[in-house]
Parts: sequence; structure tokens; C-alpha cells
Amino acid sequence: MPRSNVIKKDTFHYLWSKSHKPVLNIKPGDRVHFEVNEVNSGQISEKTTAEDLSKLDLSRLYPLAGPVYVEGAEPGDALIVKVESVKPANWGWTAVIPGLGLLDQEFTNPDLFVWNLRGASRRYARFVKNIQVPLNPFCGVLGVAPPEDGSFEVMPPGKHGGNMDIRHLTAGSTIMIPVWTKGALFSTADVHAAQGDGEVCVTAIECPGDVTLSFDLKKDADLETPCYYSGRMFGSNTGYFATTGISPDLMEATKQSVRGMISFLEENLGITRTQAYMLCSVAGELRIHEIVDRPNWVVGMMMPRSLIKEERKTSSRRRS
Amino acid sequence: MPRSNVIKKDTFHYLWSKSHKPVLNIKPGDRVHFEVNEVNSGQISEKTTAEDLSKLDLSRLYPLAGPVYVEGAEPGDALIVKVESVKPANWGWTAVIPGLGLLDQEFTNPDLFVWNLRGASRRYARFVKNIQVPLNPFCGVLGVAPPEDGSFEVMPPGKHGGNMDIRHLTAGSTIMIPVWTKGALFSTADVHAAQGDGEVCVTAIECPGDVTLSFDLKKDADLETPCYYSGRMFGSNTGYFATTGISPDLMEATKQSVRGMISFLEENLGITRTQAYMLCSVAGELRIHEIVDRPNWVVGMMMPRSLIKEERKTSSRRRS
Repeated sequence: MPRSNVIKKDTFHYLWSKSHKPVLNIKPGDRVHFEVNEVNSGQISEKTTAEDLSKLDLSRLYPLAGPVYVEGAEPGDALIVKVESVKPANWGWTAVIPGLGLLDQEFTNPDLFVWNLRGASRRYARFVKNIQVPLNPFCGVLGVAPPEDGSFEVMPPGKHGGNMDIRHLTAGSTIMIPVWTKGALFSTADVHAAQGDGEVCVTAIECPGDVTLSFDLKKDADLETPCYYSGRMFGSNTGYFATTGISPDLMEATKQSVRGMISFLEENLGITRTQAYMLCSVAGELRIHEIVDRPNWVVGMMMPRSLIKEERKTSSRRRS
Repeated sequence: MPRSNVIKKDTFHYLWSKSHKPVLNIKPGDRVHFEVNEVNSGQISEKTTAEDLSKLDLSRLYPLAGPVYVEGAEPGDALIVKVESVKPANWGWTAVIPGLGLLDQEFTNPDLFVWNLRGASRRYARFVKNIQVPLNPFCGVLGVAPPEDGSFEVMPPGKHGGNMDIRHLTAGSTIMIPVWTKGALFSTADVHAAQGDGEVCVTAIECPGDVTLSFDLKKDADLETPCYYSGRMFGSNTGYFATTGISPDLMEATKQSVRGMISFLEENLGITRTQAYMLCSVAGELRIHEIVDRPNWVVGMMMPRSLIKEERKTSSRRRS
């Protein structure tokens, strides 16, 4: 049985750094429960108004739950993080924040919408009028300490993962993140009850939440950027394997993600690189995962897992 | 009843031009059957080899079935094209073509795969090993004559639609294309039995095919780029409304597509632009539709139609 561990709400840090002291040591196979804070460290509540947004202390953005030291993790390995459950609080918020977002030049006034996430099914949250938004809870931030010395802001994601805002990382997903330092030093943050691809206005349905992850290692994985198996999402009936590209240039990010998929298919399906390239062209799905976490954007090349034809099970008994 | 019309295989043209003479005049509400040629005008067959690819006469690329003159269509209108059916031939091909494709610097040798599309269900096509590709037949090219004088290559899509390669335009879809000249002068080409988002190696499962479309008009639609309602796709259980951005810059294309969606939501759901922007952020899906039809790329912002909560039908009879 894996050991069970809890990181409480009062245990967090604000920057990525390989010099941070871990708050928990675990072994591969272990499961950890994270109490994840609201992304402004609780500065936004159900009573906050749009006018309050200008008073936010931005140095308290992105409280990271962690870091977790994973025994045996070494640079060159991949940390395998399985998302077991993500439970949003019973409320959340979405804001337009001046100076941020894809259309920041056009939307210059702050605005705030507070969501009520209470309700029996919690498959949808009510917006305005007759509009409902399907819920797909996940963690916007899943990452490890970057390779470089020093401290790094959480906003831009990178080869250490981090603030990737990949909406497909719902419960049942597994993400592989390259390890850059001994013990990996994993942290998570920024629970989203729902988010579109791109997170275009810079916020999702932001909320505190309870997250359970389990950890494993792949030795000498030699990954350049994170890749993942998606979980089941409400409204979708297929799963995906996906590779990511992370760059300030969307074209370069797309190329990275396709190259990653070609290498994955070559290695795992035993096909040639050219066959893998063709397969990306006829069956891959290309999504912009986030386009607001400056200066790095994340593109995902997603391959439906139904591509692999399962062997039909033959019965050992013949019909008589 | 709408009139029925056929454009035969021997009726096609090679360039977009508003000076082309229409081959068929129809009224809004009419249905047209198109016999669509293989995209190299039949230069590739089931017997073609990779070596033959260098001998292709590229002046015979993209034979366009049409143009169709739609009575009453004027600049400023939108041509509404409903995809009623797309039937691929019983074979298709996918190629790596030197000098083209997302990774043209890395894949410099020609290669060709010929697909067998025969079979009872035709929901999947067999690739190599145990790999199967889900079929989602659609037309890569759906467009009208551009506003400018002169003749224009089919390769880049634009505000006249054209070679958009949107894999979501399967049977049951409806696309709205801005009209730029009297009669619209609609043509179609390039049947794909299946394609991923992006069409990254520059070819899909390319094939001849039979296509049925019906036409209508929205007067004074004032569209900047095409938008569409997606059809049902195998492996997906939801439909979308989508807006497109078309630009040589992926960031600009993304912004265009999001702006288009904001305007659509504002107009059709009666919400504010800020609410529409938030809705894009929490529920929109951003896909790269094509990234190989130089120099213009197409990005789609797709909004699941399940966002609109349907009124529960109340029975007029009460239980006794």
C-alpha cells in the first residue's frame, strides 16, 4: 500500500527554486493530498468586487503547495504524476484583469464574475441567462524545480512544467514532467473548476480545492517538455496521449509538440518517423493549451488513444 | 422542394477569380451534388509510388468543382453552405512532399502511403501494424471568389474561405462564408477521408469523392472570416459553433478567432462583450485548423453548443 501524506493549506511557497527545502519526502508509488489555496492566497473571496481587483497584492500570486521531494528522482528522469482527484471549493471566480490576457488592448476595465459551484451534480456551473459551463476540474500548475540556479516566477510555464494550464489534466490523467534536480521538488497550485483551451482572458473558474496526486518515476526518460495521458472529460468520450511544445512563439511551440509526438510514436508503436509524421497529419489534434502566461505559450499535439486497435479477445471455449 | 443539380467530374477550374463564368445558377435553398476530383486532377492513383511524386505537374493541383452562382448573393452577405454528405472514394493517399509541411526542413524525402477505404463500417481506415485512423470525411476547400481583381492560387485560404482544411466540417455542418462578389461564385475541392488538426505533413487522407451541399443566404451578415457549426464527428458527442482567424501569424489568427466569437456571443446570446470574453476563457476550445497552407494559417475558437441550457419541456397535462 502506498503511504498517504497531506500538505496543508498553510504550507506553500511562491517561487520555483531548486534551493527550496522540501516539506515532504516521498517514495515512488506514494500518494499525496494537497490543500490548494486560492491563486491570490485567499485575497479573492465570494464577496470580492471588480473594484477590489486593483488592490490585489500581486506578490502573493500563485501559492505553490509543496515542494515534495521524490526519493530516487534524478535529472534526466521523468516524474510521473497521476491526477487521482481534483475537488474544487463550492465557489470560484473569473476576472478580466487590465494589462493581462489575449485581448488586453481591447479589454481595459477590470471585471469579476463569482460562480456558485454548489449543486447536486456539479457537472455544470451556471453563468448568466441560460448559459451553463461544463466543469472539468484540474490544476493549472503542476511542476518541478527548474534546472537553473535562482528563483523563478510561476507565471510562465517551461520545461519544468509549472503553469501550463492544460484543461485536459482532469482526474484520471497522468503527466510526465522532466526532472531537473535531485528529488524533483514537485509543487502544484491554481485549481480550475473549468477552463477553455487558451484561457484567453487570463483566468479560468479559479478556486481553492483539494487535490490528490500519486507519483512515480521513469528513469532516464530524456524528455524535453512534459507529455500526458488525458483523463476522461465531461462531454468527451475518448482519451488522448499528448505532447507539448512550450515557447514564446506559437509556431515553434507547435513544431516542438509535433516533434515530441513523432518521437513518442516511433518509440512506442515501432513505426518509422515518416509514418509517425503522417499519423500526426491524419489523426492528431492540435490545441493551444494556454496563450496568456507570458512570455511562454503551450501547444499540445493530442493523439486519440483509440488509434490503437485492440485485439479482439478470443474465447478459449468454442461454441458447440 | 429544392431543385437538385449536379456538377460532373469534368467540370472544374484551377484558380479563384471573380471573372470566372459560373457553370451553374442556383437559388437559395437549392442543393448541389459535386463530383470532386482527386486533388492532383487524378495524377495520383492507387498504383502511384513515392518516386512518382517528383513528376507531378503542380499546375494541376486543386481542381475546383464550380463555380456556382447563387442568385441574390451580394457583397456583405454570408453564403450559408450546409454539408449534407461527403462520400470518399474507396481509396486515398497521404504523402510527405519535399519543401512542404510543418517540418519540411526535417522530412526531406518524398514518401507515400495508399489507404484502402473499402470495408463494411468505414469508420476506421487501417494504417500500419495495429493502428487504425478514425474517418471524418469533409472538403478541405469550400470557398467563394475573393474581392480582388485577378486570379488567385488555391493554396492559401483567406477571407473568401477556400483551402481552410477544417476537419470539423463533416456531414451535418454548416459554414458561413463572406460573399465578396455578386452571385458569390462558390467552388469546392480536396475531399479528405480523415485529417488531424493542422494537417501537419501537408496531406490528409486525400481522395476523390462525392459531395452534396445545400445553399442559403444571410443578407448583410458583415462577416470578416468564415464561421461554422460543426457536424457530428465519430468519437465526439458534442457539436460546436466556431469562428475562424486566418493570418500568416498564429497569434493574430487566434486573436481574430476570439474576437469573432465575442461578437457572435454578444449578438446571439445577448450578453456583454466582457461576459463573452470570460465565456471564451472558461469554455472555448482553441484549435489550429491548418498550419501548412502557406502563407496563411487558420485557427478556430470553438464553443460547445451544450453551453446553452435547453428549457425543460413541461407537459400540458398534469399527472392526476
